[in-house]
Amino acid sequence: MSRHRACEKSKGRKGLVPRVVIVGSVALDTIRTPFDRKKDVLGGSLTYAALASSRFAATGAVGVVGTDFPARWTGLLAKAGVDIRGLARRQGRTFRWSGVYQKDMINRRTLATELNVFADFRPDLPADYRRAPFFLIGNISPALQLRVLEQAPAARFVAADTMNLWINTDRRRLVKLISQTDTLMLNDEEARLLTGRHNLAACAEALLAMGPSYLVIKKGEHGAMLFSRRGIFLAPAYPVGEVRDPTGAGDTFAGAFIGALAASGRVSDAAVRDALIWGSVVASFSVENFGADSLARVRWERIVSRRRELLRMMKV
Amino acid sequence: MSRHRACEKSKGRKGLVPRVVIVGSVALDTIRTPFDRKKDVLGGSLTYAALASSRFAATGAVGVVGTDFPARWTGLLAKAGVDIRGLARRQGRTFRWSGVYQKDMINRRTLATELNVFADFRPDLPADYRRAPFFLIGNISPALQLRVLEQAPAARFVAADTMNLWINTDRRRLVKLISQTDTLMLNDEEARLLTGRHNLAACAEALLAMGPSYLVIKKGEHGAMLFSRRGIFLAPAYPVGEVRDPTGAGDTFAGAFIGALAASGRVSDAAVRDALIWGSVVASFSVENFGADSLARVRWERIVSRRRELLRMMKV
Repeated sequence: MSRHRACEKSKGRKGLVPRVVIVGSVALDTIRTPFDRKKDVLGGSLTYAALASSRFAATGAVGVVGTDFPARWTGLLAKAGVDIRGLARRQGRTFRWSGVYQKDMINRRTLATELNVFADFRPDLPADYRRAPFFLIGNISPALQLRVLEQAPAARFVAADTMNLWINTDRRRLVKLISQTDTLMLNDEEARLLTGRHNLAACAEALLAMGPSYLVIKKGEHGAMLFSRRGIFLAPAYPVGEVRDPTGAGDTFAGAFIGALAASGRVSDAAVRDALIWGSVVASFSVENFGADSLARVRWERIVSRRRELLRMMKV
Repeated sequence: MSRHRACEKSKGRKGLVPRVVIVGSVALDTIRTPFDRKKDVLGGSLTYAALASSRFAATGAVGVVGTDFPARWTGLLAKAGVDIRGLARRQGRTFRWSGVYQKDMINRRTLATELNVFADFRPDLPADYRRAPFFLIGNISPALQLRVLEQAPAARFVAADTMNLWINTDRRRLVKLISQTDTLMLNDEEARLLTGRHNLAACAEALLAMGPSYLVIKKGEHGAMLFSRRGIFLAPAYPVGEVRDPTGAGDTFAGAFIGALAASGRVSDAAVRDALIWGSVVASFSVENFGADSLARVRWERIVSRRRELLRMMKV
């Protein structure tokens, strides 16, 4: 049982328009850690983020899979409450990624990337999705991210992620995209690469000057920092006892953030802080197991209880 | 004006017994960063920690300097309220350390270590000091740390630091020391080296099993984690805008922690959490300038105001 289903019961469904639309990749990941190895597990930024967001708010997914994509995974997404009308199925193989984690379970090396059907991905939003208020646009090329925004002129709140590839190859369009987002989410290394500064407070100043109201710098196991003109919020990561697979943690964090924010019904500094805590909590479950599907199996009560625990760990 | 002076006025001085005794090194540091270079600045774990602790509680310093130690530094310590009767002056040169920081201002390489008079350091506590309730024992050899404890059988609260050298060369005595401390303070790498585990929650379990009531794992710019049987506290670091010299930040953190705890008059989970926040705040000032002497120049009002700011950054 997730929070938004309880909310919907009282408010009633408003047609088919999702509260949140998430755009990103769907992948089959092959992952090696010092302790384990798994082949073709359910992965991709869209998958992790949508399974996290759908815990809080009706979420539409925009992505592409190949003809080899297992029906049980589309079934799992649908059963988890993710609206998959925006998930295109194309002739060919699904995007595949494989990587190996070092002993620190943080640094990783990519062994292979097969874009397959993802190479020709052009996000086209179903008509209903275009009226959604909250958007999370994962790290596809800035050109495609801008294409999403063009289809959603009435979006109330847009969060976007990026990665080093686009910072290095298409900075011009990336800067244009950033100027049109409400929240830019990236990790510490990307913030440094994009601004040419090392100190994160200095990075934040430069990035907020590009236009977004909020900047979230993700620091993995060290949590995240929120910067805005109203100040700084230090969101800790929940200290997980055993990390089995860190893949997708940042996407889960972003997905739970946008979902919780959409569910809160307001965009304020307090609501954004609260949503980031939900992000930390749900992300902590994603690293405990391989595959995004493990997220769908976490009971809502455990999420609520871990949030309470994390808040106690922050209390002076 | 520091907090404890205000307190003392109302309580009255209790003889010459300090509330806190700190044992550690006094050094003259030569430091190179990508941006600057300074020769023979005031350094050493004792110096940073005592200047931080003395902001909160009457603090006695136990260490050794050479005949070349500048009188203006002993003058500065005394003027800052540090009781320097435990600071021995020996024939020879003061301990010298030099190092160079990488661009990240975190990783550093030691260029030279000249132990000089510190090589023969034997901590001998003045009679009054032996009745002090709070002790912070910096990272000297475990044999010497145990020697301090033998001289303070009535200590109410003992915090101790260590380093990789002792973990590798004298684990047996280090484990004995840890079993006799109330709070073990070390950094994440040391916690991993000492336990042979990577995950910090797993390290914490192993370290608490050695006997201390509290474990503080210092993570530099990522803050600190407090572990105890009562749970976890995540103490963030204050996000400093410009780091000029990170040397001594961990010692400053530990010094402000023990001083604030001693000033609070109680040892409880809440008091320990509060003291760690004071640690983060005072440490943030130490990285803004070269040399421990810069700590003495920070006005108390700025410390109080930055603490308020940090608490706002933690508020959900």
